[in-house]
Amino acid sequence: MSNRENSRDSGEHVTEKILLGVIMAAAPQPVYWLGNDTLRVSAALFAENRRRLCQGLKAKDGVVSKSVVVLQGGEQKQRYCTDTDLLFRQESFFHWAFGVTEPDCYGAIDVDSGKSILFVPKLPESYATWMGEVEFCMLFGCSSILLCIDTTNQRDRAGYSLLVAVCVCSRLIKTDMELEVLRYTNRVSSEAHKMVMKNVKPGQKEYEMESLFQHYCYTKGGMRHTSYTCICGTGNNSSVLHYGHAGAPNDKTVVDGDMCLFDMGGEYYCYSSDITCSFPANGKFTADQRAIYEAVLKSSRTVMAAIKPGVKWTDMHRLADRVHLEELVKIGILHGSVEDMLKVHLGSVFMPHGLGHLLGIDVHDVGGYPEGVDRINEPGLRSLRMGRLVQERMVLTVEPGIYFINHLLDQALANSTQSCFINNQVLARFRGFGGVRIEDDIAVTADGIELLTCVPRTVEEIEAFMADSAKPFSPDVKSEKF
Amino acid sequence: MSNRENSRDSGEHVTEKILLGVIMAAAPQPVYWLGNDTLRVSAALFAENRRRLCQGLKAKDGVVSKSVVVLQGGEQKQRYCTDTDLLFRQESFFHWAFGVTEPDCYGAIDVDSGKSILFVPKLPESYATWMGEVEFCMLFGCSSILLCIDTTNQRDRAGYSLLVAVCVCSRLIKTDMELEVLRYTNRVSSEAHKMVMKNVKPGQKEYEMESLFQHYCYTKGGMRHTSYTCICGTGNNSSVLHYGHAGAPNDKTVVDGDMCLFDMGGEYYCYSSDITCSFPANGKFTADQRAIYEAVLKSSRTVMAAIKPGVKWTDMHRLADRVHLEELVKIGILHGSVEDMLKVHLGSVFMPHGLGHLLGIDVHDVGGYPEGVDRINEPGLRSLRMGRLVQERMVLTVEPGIYFINHLLDQALANSTQSCFINNQVLARFRGFGGVRIEDDIAVTADGIELLTCVPRTVEEIEAFMADSAKPFSPDVKSEKF
Repeated sequence: MSNRENSRDSGEHVTEKILLGVIMAAAPQPVYWLGNDTLRVSAALFAENRRRLCQGLKAKDGVVSKSVVVLQGGEQKQRYCTDTDLLFRQESFFHWAFGVTEPDCYGAIDVDSGKSILFVPKLPESYATWMGEVEFCMLFGCSSILLCIDTTNQRDRAGYSLLVAVCVCSRLIKTDMELEVLRYTNRVSSEAHKMVMKNVKPGQKEYEMESLFQHYCYTKGGMRHTSYTCICGTGNNSSVLHYGHAGAPNDKTVVDGDMCLFDMGGEYYCYSSDITCSFPANGKFTADQRAIYEAVLKSSRTVMAAIKPGVKWTDMHRLADRVHLEELVKIGILHGSVEDMLKVHLGSVFMPHGLGHLLGIDVHDVGGYPEGVDRINEPGLRSLRMGRLVQERMVLTVEPGIYFINHLLDQALANSTQSCFINNQVLARFRGFGGVRIEDDIAVTADGIELLTCVPRTVEEIEAFMADSAKPFSPDVKSEKF
Repeated sequence: MSNRENSRDSGEHVTEKILLGVIMAAAPQPVYWLGNDTLRVSAALFAENRRRLCQGLKAKDGVVSKSVVVLQGGEQKQRYCTDTDLLFRQESFFHWAFGVTEPDCYGAIDVDSGKSILFVPKLPESYATWMGEVEFCMLFGCSSILLCIDTTNQRDRAGYSLLVAVCVCSRLIKTDMELEVLRYTNRVSSEAHKMVMKNVKPGQKEYEMESLFQHYCYTKGGMRHTSYTCICGTGNNSSVLHYGHAGAPNDKTVVDGDMCLFDMGGEYYCYSSDITCSFPANGKFTADQRAIYEAVLKSSRTVMAAIKPGVKWTDMHRLADRVHLEELVKIGILHGSVEDMLKVHLGSVFMPHGLGHLLGIDVHDVGGYPEGVDRINEPGLRSLRMGRLVQERMVLTVEPGIYFINHLLDQALANSTQSCFINNQVLARFRGFGGVRIEDDIAVTADGIELLTCVPRTVEEIEAFMADSAKPFSPDVKSEKF
């Protein structure tokens, strides 16, 4: 037995072209909750998002009165041309507005009144046999069935691009209720990272750590999905930025002396987290590992101390680059003027990716570049996913890293404007080192940031935490204040 | 950080329209292996499949000489319109022929000579930064790069439907090397089911068992994917045939007295398993639970004893129905002539699905109905996924079940031709019971079957296994012989 035993081949279709409309009621608010210690999320979160959307639309000149927003939810998909259903995950805009976990729905919002109607598939009677009794009405607090419509591609209607722009601007700024969910995803994912740190041992496969992370997130946190494919690079793999994909599936054996770079985040009710921990597989930093790690930690904490509403995110990226170069000079890998290094983009040789990105329902959340603002076409900065000024209630990743990537190092050594700064003899010692990334999620406050991620971060914290398998981790609150 | 940091938004594309072709070498055979105790699968498995495909094509009248088969592999997909890569899983026909784990490939086979060329994406240099060094040549035992072609939709070419027909006929019959993989997927998934049985406790959430199953399969068996979404129904949910989907996501709390019906299978190197265990959450069957369970077990073992090459699969389905009805008479839920019950399809009220299906790279493997054979349009049988005679080297699920599904029971009670057999007073006791399914995977041998699944099956085995948390399970070999 598996999914869709009876749907396609037998000529029965679970979803028909007729949808039932149900008015979304205001109270009492139904709650999404997966039991035990998982978070209760009120449907009021989505009502508030819809209210903000209507408010945003009414403020726009182009929106006539009596406008109705119609959004299409995600569709149930199958594995290629088979009848095996893929595990459904809602489309992000639709989730943001309706919080509906089921596929094949539509939603309508009357902009003037703010009233909403959810259109759910009209299911054949046999659906109950295969998929269970339909409980949409209860789940979404719907009070009555209103009307039937045929589905058409609503997205082609005029006004769609305006709608997207207003949605994106709203999604950019998180409400209190959304921040609460993102705190939760960070809390659970932080705990899962700590579980991995306590259990990693040379001789294991990288994917065992991926599996353990996922198991913790799901069984303790109700997180059935991760926000993205887990990156569990050890040794030189820690310098492969998107290691973990099907072509490099976390299948190396962890070796004593390896650095681990584990970039993993759980997702709850479609809200993301995105956390990277870097640490030695055997729990004890070598002098070189400590040097690189502390260089990245310094850049992370320097940037965090500088973030507040009004700063340019591109400046934060440049600040991280500057700290990295200063520290690489101290380590002896580079020599010369950091100002001159910045002119030839030497930072991007060691950190080819961007400093961080918006986070929300998508792990790379929408809205990084407003219309008219382009990416800066320089190495490193052109990979930065956010070109806006920092605003209160943005949630962002701060993820500086230093990597030793052979082909980038070779390119730099072949380029005399860059090679003049490189002490190749010292650098040679770091070939095969891999890389270090320290990635935290932050929420921007009125005058600084709130750190959402809570994992051991200093060398001392990591070594103490990994040394004692029974010891819990309590962050040094002072060291994490900004 | 997460996947595709740098691909789409920055204008760089990981995959270009140019592919590199690499000849697939014969020896030494590279091996797919995920370390530890996971299975080593030789690339010879796929070479043998290609050889069988060519042999099948040459035997067809319509195939001219100098034909070349071109297959398109699966493409890397993203979550909706975001840059979050979905975890790639190869398309099944392509996997069967080439065993390639990477997306965006093509493969060509010269039918006359059997020589094969694999076309892999020509990747930009920056690919190595993000995704790692390309190691296709090593992985697939390719000896040299042959040529470049533009990709076009090769599938539209004439001969495609003939090709599919020959592929399907080959996939239907498993080679020794394929059977070895299916034995492995069954072994690991059986162990994972046993782990769940040892750990289930009233008070837990159903999804905790899903998570534990997945964790065991991945961390011990290298199974990153399950063959289908896990179905973890307890109490009345055990009668919802496809429970576990996003609308009913295994989120009930397990209650003392519940029956559990856990239908879960891990997948290794794209080969499936599909196993259901039914047992009481508290480890001890009530009299009613035992009665229904043993009725299903009797039908399972009766069918297994009857399966051999040449029997009709539809007859096996009818046999299961007959045993269920006989046993339901003994329990007192039904009364009257079983022959008469069969005439009005009473069996399908209690088992609305088919007895079982082909299993292979797809969990519902291809080839269930050859051209010209239609499904039998009767309740129950119309859901049967296999209408062929049983052949040696087929791998099938045997998954009889008895369920108490309110709307099907109510329909039967409202239908005088069926209600006359029902003792409604006894039936009432079973409302809310849920259901029992016993699902094993079998390989058909020359004169019977090989049972691939190995989990506690009798009431005594289950109770003894669940009672003693330390006790391993050793099947009674005699009781499992056919």
